[in-house]
Amino acid sequence: MTDSRYPKSFASDNHAGTHPAVLDAISAANVGDAPAYGDDRWTSDFAGRIRAEFGAAATGLAVLNGTGANMLGLGAMLTRRYDAVVCADTAHIATHETGATERVLGVKLVTVPTADGKLSPDDVTARLGGRGNISEVQPRVLSISQVTELGTCYSPDEIAALARTAHDNDMLLHMDGARLANAAAFLGCSLRDLTTDAGVDVLSFGATKNGALAGEAVVMLRPELAEPGRFLRRQTLQLASKMRFVSAQLTALLTDGLWRRNAAHANAMARRLADGIDDLPDLRIRWPVESNAVFASLPAPAISELQDRYLFHVWDPAAGVVRWMTAFDTSAEDVDRFVADIRGMLKD
Amino acid sequence: MTDSRYPKSFASDNHAGTHPAVLDAISAANVGDAPAYGDDRWTSDFAGRIRAEFGAAATGLAVLNGTGANMLGLGAMLTRRYDAVVCADTAHIATHETGATERVLGVKLVTVPTADGKLSPDDVTARLGGRGNISEVQPRVLSISQVTELGTCYSPDEIAALARTAHDNDMLLHMDGARLANAAAFLGCSLRDLTTDAGVDVLSFGATKNGALAGEAVVMLRPELAEPGRFLRRQTLQLASKMRFVSAQLTALLTDGLWRRNAAHANAMARRLADGIDDLPDLRIRWPVESNAVFASLPAPAISELQDRYLFHVWDPAAGVVRWMTAFDTSAEDVDRFVADIRGMLKD
Amino acid sequence: MTDSRYPKSFASDNHAGTHPAVLDAISAANVGDAPAYGDDRWTSDFAGRIRAEFGAAATGLAVLNGTGANMLGLGAMLTRRYDAVVCADTAHIATHETGATERVLGVKLVTVPTADGKLSPDDVTARLGGRGNISEVQPRVLSISQVTELGTCYSPDEIAALARTAHDNDMLLHMDGARLANAAAFLGCSLRDLTTDAGVDVLSFGATKNGALAGEAVVMLRPELAEPGRFLRRQTLQLASKMRFVSAQLTALLTDGLWRRNAAHANAMARRLADGIDDLPDLRIRWPVESNAVFASLPAPAISELQDRYLFHVWDPAAGVVRWMTAFDTSAEDVDRFVADIRGMLKD
Amino acid sequence: MTDSRYPKSFASDNHAGTHPAVLDAISAANVGDAPAYGDDRWTSDFAGRIRAEFGAAATGLAVLNGTGANMLGLGAMLTRRYDAVVCADTAHIATHETGATERVLGVKLVTVPTADGKLSPDDVTARLGGRGNISEVQPRVLSISQVTELGTCYSPDEIAALARTAHDNDMLLHMDGARLANAAAFLGCSLRDLTTDAGVDVLSFGATKNGALAGEAVVMLRPELAEPGRFLRRQTLQLASKMRFVSAQLTALLTDGLWRRNAAHANAMARRLADGIDDLPDLRIRWPVESNAVFASLPAPAISELQDRYLFHVWDPAAGVVRWMTAFDTSAEDVDRFVADIRGMLKD
Repeated sequence: MTDSRYPKSFASDNHAGTHPAVLDAISAANVGDAPAYGDDRWTSDFAGRIRAEFGAAATGLAVLNGTGANMLGLGAMLTRRYDAVVCADTAHIATHETGATERVLGVKLVTVPTADGKLSPDDVTARLGGRGNISEVQPRVLSISQVTELGTCYSPDEIAALARTAHDNDMLLHMDGARLANAAAFLGCSLRDLTTDAGVDVLSFGATKNGALAGEAVVMLRPELAEPGRFLRRQTLQLASKMRFVSAQLTALLTDGLWRRNAAHANAMARRLADGIDDLPDLRIRWPVESNAVFASLPAPAISELQDRYLFHVWDPAAGVVRWMTAFDTSAEDVDRFVADIRGMLKD
Repeated sequence: MTDSRYPKSFASDNHAGTHPAVLDAISAANVGDAPAYGDDRWTSDFAGRIRAEFGAAATGLAVLNGTGANMLGLGAMLTRRYDAVVCADTAHIATHETGATERVLGVKLVTVPTADGKLSPDDVTARLGGRGNISEVQPRVLSISQVTELGTCYSPDEIAALARTAHDNDMLLHMDGARLANAAAFLGCSLRDLTTDAGVDVLSFGATKNGALAGEAVVMLRPELAEPGRFLRRQTLQLASKMRFVSAQLTALLTDGLWRRNAAHANAMARRLADGIDDLPDLRIRWPVESNAVFASLPAPAISELQDRYLFHVWDPAAGVVRWMTAFDTSAEDVDRFVADIRGMLKD
Repeated sequence: MTDSRYPKSFASDNHAGTHPAVLDAISAANVGDAPAYGDDRWTSDFAGRIRAEFGAAATGLAVLNGTGANMLGLGAMLTRRYDAVVCADTAHIATHETGATERVLGVKLVTVPTADGKLSPDDVTARLGGRGNISEVQPRVLSISQVTELGTCYSPDEIAALARTAHDNDMLLHMDGARLANAAAFLGCSLRDLTTDAGVDVLSFGATKNGALAGEAVVMLRPELAEPGRFLRRQTLQLASKMRFVSAQLTALLTDGLWRRNAAHANAMARRLADGIDDLPDLRIRWPVESNAVFASLPAPAISELQDRYLFHVWDPAAGVVRWMTAFDTSAEDVDRFVADIRGMLKD
Repeated sequence: MTDSRYPKSFASDNHAGTHPAVLDAISAANVGDAPAYGDDRWTSDFAGRIRAEFGAAATGLAVLNGTGANMLGLGAMLTRRYDAVVCADTAHIATHETGATERVLGVKLVTVPTADGKLSPDDVTARLGGRGNISEVQPRVLSISQVTELGTCYSPDEIAALARTAHDNDMLLHMDGARLANAAAFLGCSLRDLTTDAGVDVLSFGATKNGALAGEAVVMLRPELAEPGRFLRRQTLQLASKMRFVSAQLTALLTDGLWRRNAAHANAMARRLADGIDDLPDLRIRWPVESNAVFASLPAPAISELQDRYLFHVWDPAAGVVRWMTAFDTSAEDVDRFVADIRGMLKD
């Protein structure tokens, strides 16, 4: 294997490596034998950190990846065979999980078009016309993404309003928080403000994009879901045998606010990128930059030329929209060089 | 968190930590950005190692855990909705995966009682009486465990005979090789001897129990299963975004025969344990020690007393059978002390 | 039980009773013992009628209801676990089968908004952007409804164009023909013109709405789907033990063109209804009347008053759209009285 | 179609035709329009008959076939994704439903070998060793067949003991009563004695084998299962649109004890058959004749010769066991001729 590095990527925060403190925590856990499947002290420690962040009633279940976290969490809430999930049509569970919700859970997603990836209470109630009709699935869970797939954030009040709507309609609120850390950093609030205190019932709490090697947490904010969650972690293929090494990663990020520093830095780099280009006449920022993503439309030849030098995704080929993401390890120099290249290209 | 270590465990090879070379490989892969989801050079390298071990037509898919590996591999083979799997009634997929085969794949397991965890060609053909009967599921896959859940091994000839039986009956051969390395070390043959050359179609190749942190491989030995496997890896929740860190672990074990040294050592420790106790009149070794497990029956009070000092599982409470396992990091001193304690106890 | 009859219904063609010839055929089949599960001469006769209508390669499988027919047919085509179905967002499989596609088959529906319930080739190709992307489901079946849920019909050429688009893109064409008879009667063509000769691969052929008591047929137009279909009929809970009584119903409708006479009559009654009201200024026919359904918008008070006297469904409460359906046994007098009532009401 | 009849069948009670009273009831329901999907007076009448037989808290749901009845009933009870069903290894759900439990419900069957098709409380408690173990499915339903697949019956006391065992262990009791009528007739007790009063929670109540054309009932004996049952009837493909014709059949059998007369006659014919042959030295009745089935072992050449003249199934080819069944329309002459032929054959 050669030593040559890949060029700087603006494709995804999962192109980043592992934060050194996470690697250190893994090494520190590598001390002889320990019970498997979570009966170890690193996992106890992780569970305590989850309670510290989300409240004494919260149960943290360490899992292996984000799709797994979503399936476990949704699966625990969806107990009637005709339950359905309402979500934005841009939701990761609807678009990029290879049909796991339908295949692994057997559940229909009722998808809602949105302007910016965010759902409103009216979006939800408008999908409840079939309540009680035996020919129609029955919405049981409202799933929102925080940060959304378009880089936007729900405020605590917006989440609370959705939770009320859900609970008033015999539904539960699920949050796909693959980038919850970024939202908390952007909004300047605690994890708890955006979840427990806003009425969220089940959370997928992302860690990999925040600096972990491979690990996420499902946080059950309703105590009765803890036990089903433990069984489902095994069944949905999310149970690590040497779980201490997953728990240790999560604990590292939850210690001394590392998760917030990582997220705040990534957000700042996206802000720096957006600020560096938003005056360009041929480029348009498409959604408010509220996390570590910048969505921009620009001419196709410029996109193509940029892709020769940088890794990033074209989000909507027809509309010429690209997605640029930053991560905990993106440097100001990385961003400035990228800005300079974009500006140089669009000047031509 | 205290620094105190857990006592030596004979409960499972997944109570062991991570081999240092594996941790080093993870650290070495932590060099800036890299493409996600497997489009990286560590994953290419891993794929090459798989071809080197299993032949040029083999496709290696890195996954997150053993149950995931089994579901992905079986799922790729089971395309008709009435396909079934024939396996031993002790098979891990039948007993310890919380019904994932039935729930995640929707597939019935046709389980066969065995004397020692091993199936014979006759065991298979005896389950084919319903061929073509539309009221019965149709066996499509024969799944065997190598090493079996009882610590025994199939010889290459035995595997080849099962493969012939399967193929002659419109079936494919799946191997749950969570401990394939231990079998190869015990039998003194190559991984290929036990798989590709014996007619195996799909393999779950275990790494975690062999010294990895968290990672396994599905090896598709039929080229047409490679593409379905890639889709299923995502759908069965086994796709790591920062896959380089999984691939690097697997490559470390596949480099310079580390997998074999780890397995051979674990096997030797089990042998040493068995040799140290098999003369005891109150203790009986239940199945041939052909890997890193020793199954023994002994009086209930002795079991209970031993469990105060060591971690291990009671396999069959009614029959007084326990399972003792060794790992790549079990030392001769660990074993000798354990032997001495057992001997001391059974002398009373 | 009282003898009083229900008022005339314009709610659905399944509010009609059973055609007398169908009841006669059931009685005629009630002659002592006969083999179960389809090994009887009534079922052979039915299979022959299907071949006569759809071609020598067609296999007819008698089933119990329409949702069952759809699940059996789709299930036989969808063999890869990441296969998806493209359909109109008004499709019965998407809206009124209580999530059976997702739950029973584990399959995602990719739904497409339409103006009139009909899909175009461009609607299909626009959903193929994720071909080969392992994070996305892969469209494998295009499912169209003939007659559509909005009462409109595809021409043979339109179906052929969709079939070409499907086949050119590694997809199969499924037709939910719950009212195929009505389409054939409206278009003045044979069943074969609209299916076999247009490139349809699997058909749900409706009989209950055409005058049967309870029975539909799945018609496999690809020979390799016949055997999977037989197994799936049992597994999808569609196998009648005393199948002769289902087959006899289907044969009765397929004899001497009874299906066409029933459908043509129902269509004529819908035409008569539409012709009787389409000059009313406060009423608007919403979609072309191409079968036995009339969709109309009219003022809410008129809807409400009409519902006191007649059974029918409000299709879209917000838009004030109702659906009126006729059946094989709707009489001209029934229609004329209904027309007079509507006219009287809207005059006020 | 020729008019020639099939020879008398002893293969299954579903080789019989439809009882004339059932056909009459269907014809009587064919009076113009009626609401679909069960909102009709024939269905109300049926629901009342179910309450009369099973108690005021019982909800009857008319369905289309026996496998459908089982899947609907089990599906309503199995709400946790890791719930399992304990049943005899001869249970119809385990052997002859093409894996519907696993595929349609996603549920593992924990099968128990038995001497005579009947489970005991100890059989159940012996399968509860994995309670609380997250790697194992959790038994939630005990499913018994009454009459069993081997023609034997549970007494009311035996059922009550199983219900207590189930309820004491957080399980529910399901009864596959495809031939419940035959059991009630044999035991001389009411339907209620064997179900509601014995602690059964959900019942599949067979009608087709008792003289219906095509129809069964799921009887929910726990009120909270009624609503889920209604949704699941649609989703499990068991909802007839013209439901009056299914309800009318069931009502006919539930009127004036027709179900009991039909069952008692079939039982008497099996008794007559057994009495006519049980002195034959080369023939052995294998299980007590407690319903309308006679299982006998006899020499292979005699089986083969008999099959030239009569339809019946070889139950166990290796053991030379055949199953002979009688039905509501089997005549004493049919039986006597059959007995004479058997005796003639075994004399040679």
